[in-house]
Amino acid sequence: MKILLSNDDGIEAKGLKILASALEEHAELFIIAPDREQSAVGHAITIHDPLKVSERYLNGDLFGYAVNGTPADCVKLALCSIMEEPPDLLISGINQGANLGTDIIYSGTVSAATEGTLLGVPSIAISVDSYKRDARFDTAAKVVLDMLKLIPELNIPEDTLLNVNVPDIDFEEIKGRKFTCQGKTKFVEKYVKRTDPRGNSYYWIAGEVVEIEELDIADYSAVKNGYVSITPLHFDVTNYEYLDVLKKRSEGAME
Amino acid sequence: MKILLSNDDGIEAKGLKILASALEEHAELFIIAPDREQSAVGHAITIHDPLKVSERYLNGDLFGYAVNGTPADCVKLALCSIMEEPPDLLISGINQGANLGTDIIYSGTVSAATEGTLLGVPSIAISVDSYKRDARFDTAAKVVLDMLKLIPELNIPEDTLLNVNVPDIDFEEIKGRKFTCQGKTKFVEKYVKRTDPRGNSYYWIAGEVVEIEELDIADYSAVKNGYVSITPLHFDVTNYEYLDVLKKRSEGAME
Repeated sequence: MKILLSNDDGIEAKGLKILASALEEHAELFIIAPDREQSAVGHAITIHDPLKVSERYLNGDLFGYAVNGTPADCVKLALCSIMEEPPDLLISGINQGANLGTDIIYSGTVSAATEGTLLGVPSIAISVDSYKRDARFDTAAKVVLDMLKLIPELNIPEDTLLNVNVPDIDFEEIKGRKFTCQGKTKFVEKYVKRTDPRGNSYYWIAGEVVEIEELDIADYSAVKNGYVSITPLHFDVTNYEYLDVLKKRSEGAME
Repeated sequence: MKILLSNDDGIEAKGLKILASALEEHAELFIIAPDREQSAVGHAITIHDPLKVSERYLNGDLFGYAVNGTPADCVKLALCSIMEEPPDLLISGINQGANLGTDIIYSGTVSAATEGTLLGVPSIAISVDSYKRDARFDTAAKVVLDMLKLIPELNIPEDTLLNVNVPDIDFEEIKGRKFTCQGKTKFVEKYVKRTDPRGNSYYWIAGEVVEIEELDIADYSAVKNGYVSITPLHFDVTNYEYLDVLKKRSEGAME
């Protein structure tokens, strides 16, 4: 089995190294990741600058490529130019911090998996729900090993990726896995305004995520309650329900 | 009526200036945009750097703010920090180049409208289907003026924005408007590999968009056939159909 590994925390991130070490017995790995942290880049791609690729050694003899670009750039470049044949699976992560609810639109981790899916490779985004230094990446790595067995049975549609979020607890404490929908969360925005030594204003983003609608079947609730959350995501953001309303309305207008 | 204007082509872009000139008789404008082109940034936000805001004069006495960030940064900053009260409407554009099909996941224009919707402001993304210097921004500006009359009747749901794409033709030649879904398009990727004077390799992205499934109700087809395409978009990317399959499967496993 050949696995493409990427992330948005960068080639030096702990989550990527732990995942690579856990996977190297089970698969042939191709590792490509941004050369620095690229959190909250959304689905950005680099079109006005050239991309440079450098070779890096991670743990021991684990070898990877670092790119001066975004997670989506890394995946595109690997699949369209560097790899000789497509991998069987793409895994993006292990991200430090959950990717849940509405906030996944900002997620570089999910964007790498999205890009893989767009380019025809079954893809998973994996995140652990902690920003702490001692986040349980080992738990999330075990969840990935479990997923390797599960995936062939799932018949994932071609346009769909799995967004997996793992609670920050021991693997043995996990209550099970839940197939979930994207929850409705909101980032309550605040900007802190400061003044530099020359008297110019500048702004830092601040704020926190709140769940605006508590749903038992939502990703957010599953993780909060000790489950691994697996959300199938695709790229169609059409609001079909409302589209039907609009169409009926315009048919009416034509009468 | 108070309108927040933004874009991803930057504060100096022709599309923004033409739209602002067309709107200034009809509304009080608040203009905020990136200080340089930010195409293909997806829904990126700036979290590790401070945002700086500078004041700029556009056409004549039209005044706006330039931000060293992404379209989503501009909208967040305006709505959460600079504006004293929320606007009645946000318009992002007029973008040079259509935002259609799967490619809207890369779109900075759509991301500004998404951010507006997330923050509770009815929002529209508007693009003209041309990358040429003489793109018909004037046609798209007339379409926006028409939309101002239409919007109050539409009862747009709170979680939904309108992604509007206009063909690059005279306003009088437009055949009408169609409410559409996001089409299935694919960016056929290519990277051009080059070598710098010091012998290091670098890559430029290249390639083109193709429509992989021709649907009469898709955004892509509407624009190609001379209609204004209006697609209602929301942020829920859950593949519910497949989620049902997964749930039935896991219920079966528990029996």
